[in-house]
Amino acid sequence: MDNYSGKIEYRIEAPFFIIKLSDPGRLNSLAGNDYLYLAQLLEKADEDDCVYFTVLQSSGRFFSSGADYLSIGKAQETNKSEPELNKWLSNFVSRNVYVTDMFTRHRKILICCLNGPAIGLSAALCALCDIVYSMNENVYLLFPFASLGLVTEGATSVTLPLKLGNNATYQALMFNEPIKYDKLKGSVITKNYGLNDTEKFNTAVMDELRQKTNHLYLPSILGIKKLLMINIRDQLERANAVEVNDALKCWVKGEPQKRFKELSLKQRKHKL
Amino acid sequence: MDNYSGKIEYRIEAPFFIIKLSDPGRLNSLAGNDYLYLAQLLEKADEDDCVYFTVLQSSGRFFSSGADYLSIGKAQETNKSEPELNKWLSNFVSRNVYVTDMFTRHRKILICCLNGPAIGLSAALCALCDIVYSMNENVYLLFPFASLGLVTEGATSVTLPLKLGNNATYQALMFNEPIKYDKLKGSVITKNYGLNDTEKFNTAVMDELRQKTNHLYLPSILGIKKLLMINIRDQLERANAVEVNDALKCWVKGEPQKRFKELSLKQRKHKL
Amino acid sequence: MDNYSGKIEYRIEAPFFIIKLSDPGRLNSLAGNDYLYLAQLLEKADEDDCVYFTVLQSSGRFFSSGADYLSIGKAQETNKSEPELNKWLSNFVSRNVYVTDMFTRHRKILICCLNGPAIGLSAALCALCDIVYSMNENVYLLFPFASLGLVTEGATSVTLPLKLGNNATYQALMFNEPIKYDKLKGSVITKNYGLNDTEKFNTAVMDELRQKTNHLYLPSILGIKKLLMINIRDQLERANAVEVNDALKCWVKGEPQKRFKELSLKQRKHKL
Amino acid sequence: MDNYSGKIEYRIEAPFFIIKLSDPGRLNSLAGNDYLYLAQLLEKADEDDCVYFTVLQSSGRFFSSGADYLSIGKAQETNKSEPELNKWLSNFVSRNVYVTDMFTRHRKILICCLNGPAIGLSAALCALCDIVYSMNENVYLLFPFASLGLVTEGATSVTLPLKLGNNATYQALMFNEPIKYDKLKGSVITKNYGLNDTEKFNTAVMDELRQKTNHLYLPSILGIKKLLMINIRDQLERANAVEVNDALKCWVKGEPQKRFKELSLKQRKHKL
Amino acid sequence: MDNYSGKIEYRIEAPFFIIKLSDPGRLNSLAGNDYLYLAQLLEKADEDDCVYFTVLQSSGRFFSSGADYLSIGKAQETNKSEPELNKWLSNFVSRNVYVTDMFTRHRKILICCLNGPAIGLSAALCALCDIVYSMNENVYLLFPFASLGLVTEGATSVTLPLKLGNNATYQALMFNEPIKYDKLKGSVITKNYGLNDTEKFNTAVMDELRQKTNHLYLPSILGIKKLLMINIRDQLERANAVEVNDALKCWVKGEPQKRFKELSLKQRKHKL
Amino acid sequence: MDNYSGKIEYRIEAPFFIIKLSDPGRLNSLAGNDYLYLAQLLEKADEDDCVYFTVLQSSGRFFSSGADYLSIGKAQETNKSEPELNKWLSNFVSRNVYVTDMFTRHRKILICCLNGPAIGLSAALCALCDIVYSMNENVYLLFPFASLGLVTEGATSVTLPLKLGNNATYQALMFNEPIKYDKLKGSVITKNYGLNDTEKFNTAVMDELRQKTNHLYLPSILGIKKLLMINIRDQLERANAVEVNDALKCWVKGEPQKRFKELSLKQRKHKL
Repeated sequence: MDNYSGKIEYRIEAPFFIIKLSDPGRLNSLAGNDYLYLAQLLEKADEDDCVYFTVLQSSGRFFSSGADYLSIGKAQETNKSEPELNKWLSNFVSRNVYVTDMFTRHRKILICCLNGPAIGLSAALCALCDIVYSMNENVYLLFPFASLGLVTEGATSVTLPLKLGNNATYQALMFNEPIKYDKLKGSVITKNYGLNDTEKFNTAVMDELRQKTNHLYLPSILGIKKLLMINIRDQLERANAVEVNDALKCWVKGEPQKRFKELSLKQRKHKL
Repeated sequence: MDNYSGKIEYRIEAPFFIIKLSDPGRLNSLAGNDYLYLAQLLEKADEDDCVYFTVLQSSGRFFSSGADYLSIGKAQETNKSEPELNKWLSNFVSRNVYVTDMFTRHRKILICCLNGPAIGLSAALCALCDIVYSMNENVYLLFPFASLGLVTEGATSVTLPLKLGNNATYQALMFNEPIKYDKLKGSVITKNYGLNDTEKFNTAVMDELRQKTNHLYLPSILGIKKLLMINIRDQLERANAVEVNDALKCWVKGEPQKRFKELSLKQRKHKL
Repeated sequence: MDNYSGKIEYRIEAPFFIIKLSDPGRLNSLAGNDYLYLAQLLEKADEDDCVYFTVLQSSGRFFSSGADYLSIGKAQETNKSEPELNKWLSNFVSRNVYVTDMFTRHRKILICCLNGPAIGLSAALCALCDIVYSMNENVYLLFPFASLGLVTEGATSVTLPLKLGNNATYQALMFNEPIKYDKLKGSVITKNYGLNDTEKFNTAVMDELRQKTNHLYLPSILGIKKLLMINIRDQLERANAVEVNDALKCWVKGEPQKRFKELSLKQRKHKL
Repeated sequence: MDNYSGKIEYRIEAPFFIIKLSDPGRLNSLAGNDYLYLAQLLEKADEDDCVYFTVLQSSGRFFSSGADYLSIGKAQETNKSEPELNKWLSNFVSRNVYVTDMFTRHRKILICCLNGPAIGLSAALCALCDIVYSMNENVYLLFPFASLGLVTEGATSVTLPLKLGNNATYQALMFNEPIKYDKLKGSVITKNYGLNDTEKFNTAVMDELRQKTNHLYLPSILGIKKLLMINIRDQLERANAVEVNDALKCWVKGEPQKRFKELSLKQRKHKL
Repeated sequence: MDNYSGKIEYRIEAPFFIIKLSDPGRLNSLAGNDYLYLAQLLEKADEDDCVYFTVLQSSGRFFSSGADYLSIGKAQETNKSEPELNKWLSNFVSRNVYVTDMFTRHRKILICCLNGPAIGLSAALCALCDIVYSMNENVYLLFPFASLGLVTEGATSVTLPLKLGNNATYQALMFNEPIKYDKLKGSVITKNYGLNDTEKFNTAVMDELRQKTNHLYLPSILGIKKLLMINIRDQLERANAVEVNDALKCWVKGEPQKRFKELSLKQRKHKL
Repeated sequence: MDNYSGKIEYRIEAPFFIIKLSDPGRLNSLAGNDYLYLAQLLEKADEDDCVYFTVLQSSGRFFSSGADYLSIGKAQETNKSEPELNKWLSNFVSRNVYVTDMFTRHRKILICCLNGPAIGLSAALCALCDIVYSMNENVYLLFPFASLGLVTEGATSVTLPLKLGNNATYQALMFNEPIKYDKLKGSVITKNYGLNDTEKFNTAVMDELRQKTNHLYLPSILGIKKLLMINIRDQLERANAVEVNDALKCWVKGEPQKRFKELSLKQRKHKL
């Protein structure tokens, strides 16, 4: 597993496989290879027979501010000689198809400990989790596709209507609005811990999980997830293929790059 | 577009195509040809490349009190020589198949400004919109199919369970109960403006829409809707065909006509 | 209909077919044959042309505490000579396939009067009802599959995500948590009567139903249900087959029997 | 049933409901109301409990040469004052939605005795039959949509790929090629009687049917059809709605009318 | 695995798991428990990691003449005190749900060596195989559901239209016609060995299989089957549930028992 | 369009967009970038309003011998420092997702002039075409996935069962057998030109196409394809995503590379 990323740690405490985003200084933004590493960790968890739950944790203020602007700029510049198509096939399509698929077909229970805002592809992965806990009411999910010249990613064209309802999804996606706690409560978030420290939140979740899973027959859990997945599996896979090919056209035309750049300039001035 | 109806106005303020029901005196009830005109306006908006949002507004106390009883009576009497089947194929099936389809396959974002109650087919069209805003908490949707001897129309057999949930749909449809603000909030209505004047409400929505769409890359919006529609497109089309053919049997047997007539007599006495 | 059970009564008050669980002393727990009798009553209601609503009532504190432990133990011991496979095919698979199917394809409106907690297969049947009313806020549904070494039953792998949402379903199923009134409200329960006496509750519901159905054209009601069922019918049938065959493996391996036994011992000490 | 048409006869010889196109002089071309009458006969057969098989026969050289050009011209001219949209909603959409639906949801076994060529909507109905017998090898189906400025009708966008395969369907539809006996054999036609007289053919089929159904338990037949229909029912209904709404656009633009007229002129010269 | 049946043998010659029906004297008719044993052997093959192909062979003149009449009669008489419903749940529903499911979800390549006719459920299982070889042109499949008062079994409501096409399926099922070699060729049978001795046929197939699989990467084979199964898996499971519950009604009403009895009497006279 | 490949030519002769594989010396094997260029040409044809048919031609003996072994080897060696995962995401996943999608969503009629054998991904693209003509009876399609340690590519897990039937697909895929003319005839190939010179074949097809499309209303053709595609569109996209992610695992494990290498060595000795 050689996309090793300094920004992501993991440890196994059977039956839990705990993955932690650990770059709070840069709000846990992730470059392309970080997302690949994350997906590879999921694959590792999937193959480990003593693992029944895959837990995503983060650190600091944000769960993850999404794709790292710098890495996008870099991708664009490194292989200047390559055709635009090939560049974005390698840097966008192949990565998103793989990462989304690893979340989509994960056989263990995916639990997300949402300590703060999640943006873009990171928010999409959160929407692919089976269970989400929030640290407090300040969390939100933001899918800025419409303001970045993109379309939905990470199977959000399926997960958001499924989990938030159709009209709330349009409201959030069309106007680039954050989906706040009051919308996520019940539909995405099943428990709010009401804490203010990410480490304490992570610990509290793990303590409760350990206690709750104590008397369970763990193979039943995987059997139940398998049955539940049948309902949406095919739709998620279908969305994955269509989304990346639609987004590819955006990248080849160049709008997202332009808007990421503007955003990055603005951000340097104002701090997010 | 020659079903021109004095009850419906429209104007284009790119990227918005604004359609307004403007017959507040008769609570914006619509005759068969009015619905056709409404659908034709949607088609016009769909084909206009500078349009990204199609906004439905109304006027006065009601969004729309649904099908105009008089027009139903008239339809029945004009072509007395025609077989019952043919009469209702022309007056009901063909109109509903077309109107529902125009809403179902509309490619622009459909926004409904719900200033008051919507009933019957008008309520069904509201349920087909992507985004609904309410003027205040007095709005409701009413689907009186069970008391009129009809079955679901306008793909409500798909949209209501999808948006309101299965059991709430049964409760509303089986007992002819209005679906009030507290049920619509979150699931159908994504923002309540808390106003009491329809004109001010319409203006407030348009002002906010203009401001919200300012920084968006508009082609992304249509790309996102296209991806979201894949999930329900086929189901909506299927429902459209089955619903009209089931309802046709009701019309040919004559129960709805009888009940519409009773209702119309009652109404003349009590005012709605 | 010869699975006659002393625990279940029924009466016909057209257009209502009223089925009542009447074993409050044992919390309306049901043995295999009781479930079959219940399903046969549904079939009877389905075939009776003067019936439009099938109403499930119960008695005492619990709606139904689920499968009767004793009957499971007995099933296991009677036919000691039979292969394990055949034993559980007869005692589990065949019963669940039939009962679930009778609820899934029932053509009349299924109304559940939830006077108290429902557990296991009984709770699954409640989740298959079209409309659920609660007596008060103390009701809950409990699906203890994960702690009993089982997987979802009674098409709950479809009904729970459909009615409660995906993440709430995982939260409840994976950790064996009761789904309480605040989660059921709106999604499963469409009205709470706020009463404390089951008989008064049952009477209140029937009084309201009689009054509400007064002005309806009853054939419309069945026509509307037929249209609504198209959306989920195939999914429910598919789930039924997969669930029983997955559960069969659990029974053949013996985990559920062991855990039912433990539970039954514990219960004898503590009272539930 | 008041679309009574002198071109179509029927008789009931339980368990058979026999419908016969009886206008050999005009090659059994059918006007709009003739198709409605045909569909109404199907409905009558469907509701008759002593009917298990609905048999379509014809007379003369052609099974049916499709829509009667004259009736199309007439439709166009009668209601000159009506908007184009309304005219074609009444004359095309409503008729096709209904006729296709009556074939799609017919519960009895549909048997077509193909004595000769079938064209257009008539050919589409033949493709909707469960069983087709041919008189001899001169039969063919022709779907001249591409040369008439139309799109597929009568759910042929589903039935043809299903029965003939994908590529053979493209070959036939895109180039307006007749689908001849060698393609129909096995896929659509299950027996060829090798006769040259339509009356003898009709008699031979009925004789064989009577003998073949002798020892059957007839309710099983309807039960089997119900199970087989589940596979394609929803797809057929969905196609019905989409096809008519797509075709409507063609009619409103006017291309089919123009091409039907040309064809009619040509025909008058050359004889078909 | 304790339904051990003297009529079925098996042996493992990795990568082949070979199951052989070995009761040629009674034309390899199978009683309920024989079918269970067959399904259990499939499960055994599925779980054995060194198995990639599960090969079904038979012996003598028939592949399998289907359900053993005697066993049906016996089932009926043993538990005379049991309600009819329960009797057929145990003897028909549970067995068919399980056997069909074991074939439906089998992960190894299912190869059927069709040495002669297969009838009823045995023929249905043959239609569920991935690959079928015939000994000669005298083989046929017969599904006598319509003459036995039954409906389709073993997911034939899905497999037959899928493999033989829609109209050929109706022709065979509605008139109780054997599906002969010329119909099976290409669609079900991919190679005909043109032999006249079952043992030589079985040997010839195994020889060819060994040689053909020589250079393959066997894990690819299972990966490909997994991808191919996605297309029909859900449909097969759905059919399984609906078919058994529809058939159950037939058994409870008693028609199949009566007809099986008649058949058995006739047979004793004429020899099949 | 900068993946320009010397191996592929194109010209536009409205309404035809003609793409020609022009590397007969190396049997029209294609490297990764050649496939991208081919897909980009399809996109160009899709966007050109005067194009209604996209025709694929080839040259020499083979239509295309599939992926170029050398290019696979090169891909492997160039970026030795890159993680295996990333290498195959760039070289396999991203390319296949894009190429398959361009064929899957192509709106113009795709016609393949099959002059000789097609292998691997090239054969998969041929199976995605709407219409295929053969030069003579020596053509075949070969999908050597099982012998190369791969799984299905290019949506063949959907197209092959759809076009060839389920059992014929298993026979071909499991044993790495060429699918010869007699299997392709009717199902994939709709006309055989019986010629022996590729240039003459290409000319003959174009001549016939020009003549056949003469009297058609071309927009109807695209309208019909749109309706036909609804049936399989979602399935093809779903297959695309699942196939590439399953194949990715194969590449990361290294089996295909090993087997491609062996094949390439063997080939150098024997000539293909």
